[in-house]
Amino acid sequence: MPEEPLHFQTIRQVGERIRRRELSPVELTTAIIDRSERLDGPLNAFITITREQALAQARSAEKAILAGHDFGPLHGIPISLKDLYQTVGVKTTGGSKILADWVPTTDATVTRRLSLAGAIVIGKNNLHEFAFGATNENPHYGPSRNPWNRERITGGSSGGSAAAVAAGLGYASMGSDTGGSIRLPAAFCGIVGVKPTYGLVSRAGVLPLSWSLDHCGPLTRTVEDAALMLNAIIGHDHADPASTSRVTPDLTTALDGKVQGLRVGVLREYLGENVNAEVASAVRTAARDLERLGTRVEEVSVPEVAYGDGASIGILYGEAAAIHERWLKTHRDQYGADVLERLSQGERMTATQYLKGQRARRVLVDRFKRLFEQIDVLISPTVPILAPTIPESRGNAARAQLLGFTRLFNVLGLPTLSVPCGFSTTGLPIGLQVAGRPFDDITILRVAHAYERQAGWDTHRPAV
Amino acid sequence: MPEEPLHFQTIRQVGERIRRRELSPVELTTAIIDRSERLDGPLNAFITITREQALAQARSAEKAILAGHDFGPLHGIPISLKDLYQTVGVKTTGGSKILADWVPTTDATVTRRLSLAGAIVIGKNNLHEFAFGATNENPHYGPSRNPWNRERITGGSSGGSAAAVAAGLGYASMGSDTGGSIRLPAAFCGIVGVKPTYGLVSRAGVLPLSWSLDHCGPLTRTVEDAALMLNAIIGHDHADPASTSRVTPDLTTALDGKVQGLRVGVLREYLGENVNAEVASAVRTAARDLERLGTRVEEVSVPEVAYGDGASIGILYGEAAAIHERWLKTHRDQYGADVLERLSQGERMTATQYLKGQRARRVLVDRFKRLFEQIDVLISPTVPILAPTIPESRGNAARAQLLGFTRLFNVLGLPTLSVPCGFSTTGLPIGLQVAGRPFDDITILRVAHAYERQAGWDTHRPAV
Repeated sequence: MPEEPLHFQTIRQVGERIRRRELSPVELTTAIIDRSERLDGPLNAFITITREQALAQARSAEKAILAGHDFGPLHGIPISLKDLYQTVGVKTTGGSKILADWVPTTDATVTRRLSLAGAIVIGKNNLHEFAFGATNENPHYGPSRNPWNRERITGGSSGGSAAAVAAGLGYASMGSDTGGSIRLPAAFCGIVGVKPTYGLVSRAGVLPLSWSLDHCGPLTRTVEDAALMLNAIIGHDHADPASTSRVTPDLTTALDGKVQGLRVGVLREYLGENVNAEVASAVRTAARDLERLGTRVEEVSVPEVAYGDGASIGILYGEAAAIHERWLKTHRDQYGADVLERLSQGERMTATQYLKGQRARRVLVDRFKRLFEQIDVLISPTVPILAPTIPESRGNAARAQLLGFTRLFNVLGLPTLSVPCGFSTTGLPIGLQVAGRPFDDITILRVAHAYERQAGWDTHRPAV
Repeated sequence: MPEEPLHFQTIRQVGERIRRRELSPVELTTAIIDRSERLDGPLNAFITITREQALAQARSAEKAILAGHDFGPLHGIPISLKDLYQTVGVKTTGGSKILADWVPTTDATVTRRLSLAGAIVIGKNNLHEFAFGATNENPHYGPSRNPWNRERITGGSSGGSAAAVAAGLGYASMGSDTGGSIRLPAAFCGIVGVKPTYGLVSRAGVLPLSWSLDHCGPLTRTVEDAALMLNAIIGHDHADPASTSRVTPDLTTALDGKVQGLRVGVLREYLGENVNAEVASAVRTAARDLERLGTRVEEVSVPEVAYGDGASIGILYGEAAAIHERWLKTHRDQYGADVLERLSQGERMTATQYLKGQRARRVLVDRFKRLFEQIDVLISPTVPILAPTIPESRGNAARAQLLGFTRLFNVLGLPTLSVPCGFSTTGLPIGLQVAGRPFDDITILRVAHAYERQAGWDTHRPAV
């Protein structure tokens, strides 16, 4: 097997070469930025590429290496951030016109932790405006485009992140996920996206959309790389009220292949007639692969998942309108039409409607607590459809389906990821969603990693 | 000192006589029910007196004693319950017309725990309709009247509970407190009322008013009796999602007088010009008494308490309207005018307004976390005014003041109690409010008990 080109290698691979001093962080960063500037035009994965700051970071990472310091597996690795993460000295637009020129004076906690781990931030990724939408068709910065087929959407709202990672414009990107915004674009772009357990990763300094549904997490090309990213950013942060003070184990210990005997539930309600046949088939094949790996696969039925949409929308729209209250008064005409329409719906929402969502959430949390006494992980398609074209994605039918299988897991707060599980005959990636118990992120990583090793979809690359 | 009449003795005193078989639970229950039936007319402390059921309970308590069983300090003790606590076979009206004939088929968790502890439930207390008001002027069951002066209100919403206990119609009553509904009537009726830390006492089977503000707790004539009641009812309950699984120490260990060196903060904002002069003077005297007991008293200032009203009202009205949503559609005309007006305000509340309340709560919780690094307990008047007459209480001025100093502590979830600290020249009781750290209920009981022993206000009785 010929060696992968540098830009498609994994964090583990390039990280080891950097630590062996075979690869210079400055050269690597330069190469990745050159590639990004060359290829980003049609993909539109970046709002800002930070060549100067990145090279300064790379020089100091290199100096540290040469001085014998080792900051860990991310030392010298070029990554990017959804343009919702505050970055000192680099504008943070939130994909909006309102913040088009905002240059923060503090870093998000995650930005800071990644810097301390030696990662090099090469730019800020395009996103759905204020993360409030799933198509990534941004009226201010243009749509991001799917590296597998540029007529198609990346999915959103972390669509620029997914496109960049899938196209080899950096080794990882940090996204955010309020209803599926990491997992959906990861699935459509053929990469791994992890929404960790609610409270595991700090959201301080990341523009909020919904206090109780927002999650931060990584998009990477492999499960191992996701574990490396998570290791660098988890840990209590007093600046995020939801941040847990639990101590989490080294997540790379999940990469041991020990899935024998694990109980895998296949969610019947997410494999119904509304699911694209190729998607359903890929997921059923993945279930059989997992069985061959020694897991015990069974179909489970949770009719209550039907409450998930109402709970998600009630909570999300209510909280988003509260968060945007001030700007809706002062900058109303600067929002894009679709986001303003959603925020206007949120403004009209009553406290009673909001609280109905929170009550449904309670019922769902209890129900899934019982479900996870019976199984260790739950699998389903990440998205019921294949990536639509940009015009198709404007229709209500497509919009309603994009987050149909992901938003439930934000309501539940459970750790959930998407890992590639195949391609359509038209060459579009398909994602397998894996969910687990609260703070048992390690088990979803374990299952996804064993599956990935067996299935080998992570070696497929888009032609960019 | 002549012995107290039986009905004014403490739970500890009569409990010991019961266990020594000097006092029969059946005779005691009969005596207390006779007294209640004789005196309740003008007080209107009860909606239902359950003579038959109580005597059946008393007979089995007596049988157990004679058989050598000891259920603990509450064994054979006649108590009552605010008519919001579900009782199997006994109607539970919630003070409403809507539930005037409702006979539950399950007990509240607290009802069941008190029965298991051997307590005898002699009746269900009058309350403000659905606990949504502070005057206890109930349009369906009549106003409860203050045993110290029957022209004056008991305060509410646990007003019947307070009147019963103050008048010697039972040894304790369980109340509920969403904005002060235990502490306010305890203060106006000259007894002890405890709102424990949020999550310490189960609310399962108690008609809800506000999920995130409701607390259950006891009203008693002494701090020791409150500790005995709490010991019987605390402990995890899976039926209340907010119920803590912490293990709480025996609260009677708080009654050791060891207050030397404790730091007592006197809240400046709650001793301003709007406070009745006699109330302020009684609280300042209590602060000096606490200093003489060896505590370190200092004035503290928390200007942020000004956000307390907005947070409380935003959360309370929003949640109450959501809870009453169905009945507001089906039984709208059966609500009393004042409660319907409040619920209508709640119906008009937007999700944004509700969430503003929850955001203010977060700021307040953080601020008080810091405050309680500096002090161990915080004291203030329980109410800024003396009990108004029933007509006076209908004015907006009085209404705004009734819960002015209590509702903050529901927003905070902190353990807070009211203990008598004197009388006005007109003979009306004054309450001292004592608040503490989360789950440090033992310290507020310790301070209140030491103060009570020193001050002796618990020996004063109304002339009923």
